Amino acid sequence: MSADTAPQVAPYPALWGRIAASLARQGMSQAMGVRLLRAEPGCVELALPYSDKVTQQQLGFHGGATGMLADIAGGYAALTLAHEGLEVTTVEYKINFLAAFKEGELRATGTVVRAGKRVTVATVEVLHVDAQGRSSPCALMQQTLTTVSASA
Amino acid sequence: MSADTAPQVAPYPALWGRIAASLARQGMSQAMGVRLLRAEPGCVELALPYSDKVTQQQLGFHGGATGMLADIAGGYAALTLAHEGLEVTTVEYKINFLAAFKEGELRATGTVVRAGKRVTVATVEVLHVDAQGRSSPCALMQQTLTTVSASA
Amino acid sequence: MSADTAPQVAPYPALWGRIAASLARQGMSQAMGVRLLRAEPGCVELALPYSDKVTQQQLGFHGGATGMLADIAGGYAALTLAHEGLEVTTVEYKINFLAAFKEGELRATGTVVRAGKRVTVATVEVLHVDAQGRSSPCALMQQTLTTVSASA
Amino acid sequence: MSADTAPQVAPYPALWGRIAASLARQGMSQAMGVRLLRAEPGCVELALPYSDKVTQQQLGFHGGATGMLADIAGGYAALTLAHEGLEVTTVEYKINFLAAFKEGELRATGTVVRAGKRVTVATVEVLHVDAQGRSSPCALMQQTLTTVSASA
Repeated sequence: MSADTAPQVAPYPALWGRIAASLARQGMSQAMGVRLLRAEPGCVELALPYSDKVTQQQLGFHGGATGMLADIAGGYAALTLAHEGLEVTTVEYKINFLAAFKEGELRATGTVVRAGKRVTVATVEVLHVDAQGRSSPCALMQQTLTTVSASA
Repeated sequence: MSADTAPQVAPYPALWGRIAASLARQGMSQAMGVRLLRAEPGCVELALPYSDKVTQQQLGFHGGATGMLADIAGGYAALTLAHEGLEVTTVEYKINFLAAFKEGELRATGTVVRAGKRVTVATVEVLHVDAQGRSSPCALMQQTLTTVSASA
Repeated sequence: MSADTAPQVAPYPALWGRIAASLARQGMSQAMGVRLLRAEPGCVELALPYSDKVTQQQLGFHGGATGMLADIAGGYAALTLAHEGLEVTTVEYKINFLAAFKEGELRATGTVVRAGKRVTVATVEVLHVDAQGRSSPCALMQQTLTTVSASA
Repeated sequence: MSADTAPQVAPYPALWGRIAASLARQGMSQAMGVRLLRAEPGCVELALPYSDKVTQQQLGFHGGATGMLADIAGGYAALTLAHEGLEVTTVEYKINFLAAFKEGELRATGTVVRAGKRVTVATVEVLHVDAQGRSSPCALMQQTLTTVSASA
């Protein structure tokens, strides 16, 4: 599935299009193979498949890849609630790594907890899904974001 | 400079070798182009050059790349103080993004604040260095790590 | 209700007793008026009433009071899953303040997300409850804890 | 020394007066016995003496007291750089606890790392000082703040 093509069942096609278009402009997401799975008001889910571009020294998913995926998921969750013409910037985040995984893929679901004029707070759950489809907790993020005009 | 070759001036060649060898096994660091600049007891510095593999949607360095670089720098700073045969795992980190940058490179310096039996705490400063060599604050991380046996 | 008396409906009287006895030994909690509301495996709820001992300079609840309450709730949530004879220590936490409140009381519910041998992760939601019983989000914490022998 | 009286050596008496006046309005700080030690542009130091109002269940300083002290020190460090008529609000913070202490006092030094239009970032070091004047690292905080009009 192309990143800029909404799945037939996408319930919010305009949101999907906005997020998918932004994701397609991220060189890092494209290089890593990040895919959009879900875009709803206040909630975005992304996937990152295992490959030799996302590993640490013991061949598990790199914490940097996990953090990147979670940061993007939370940022786009905030973007779904921002007016057109605004961009979302991460002020800071904190992530706990719960377990290490090889193979399969990571799925990060970002959810907005509070959308304010200046500050938005999101939480992101990252699960690992193995080849048999079994999912396990991988990481947990709490994130602070702000909106800026897109030209900034 | 090859990642597994200590610079002629490296004051701690064994530490350099240990960190460089570990870094060379990280698929993600290799894919992104992370380079080791310094390895001393309790302190490691890394660089990440700008490329289309590390950008976000506005063509600046991706926060995910910044977070990855800082996480690795802090982790290796902790590793310099861990006994041979132990690996270091990130329990969690928190990162503030101070400013966005294009071009040039990021440099992350991880420093151990407290090395305990169970828990190590590090801070990481990330600077941006432009083509003229001017450096500017980019991000700040506070990180918690633990040591595990390398076979774990 | 006395802090060391389980409510008639307390479903886990032994847990209640353990947490209440620990809380009663905390000089700070006693000085602030913290009350135990719920103690279940992996989940503890506490309340902090408004008074002139918990205010900041604009007479709202002090962030320090909110942080203290959340830290205790998460710590005791972890303690409910720790073997007898072990104590729980906070390694670190991160808290977002969502809104400021006067009067009424704060209620913090700590929930264990992952209980590991070395590291436990909890999240804590803090709500404000006003005189009419209406509750509003106040703060959100993500916390890392470890267990130590009680004599340590 | 009264909280609203600058020491004879205070190099920034107007800053000292502004911070001391705000601190005197904080019910919680007054109840705990927080004292102002230093107020300079971008840097504030506070002290909290040991008493039965600041203890946890093992009679050490309560993490809630440590967190409160650090939060205030960072907040006032930010306030030293804010225009008159503005207040500073903590968006979030993250704190690592490095060691536990009884007796003596805690000293928290907040330092502004970046003062922005919307977002200010501070770090806070908390030391324990014993009766002989020996100081030891106690906690480390990284904090995000924002300015609001004082009437908000």
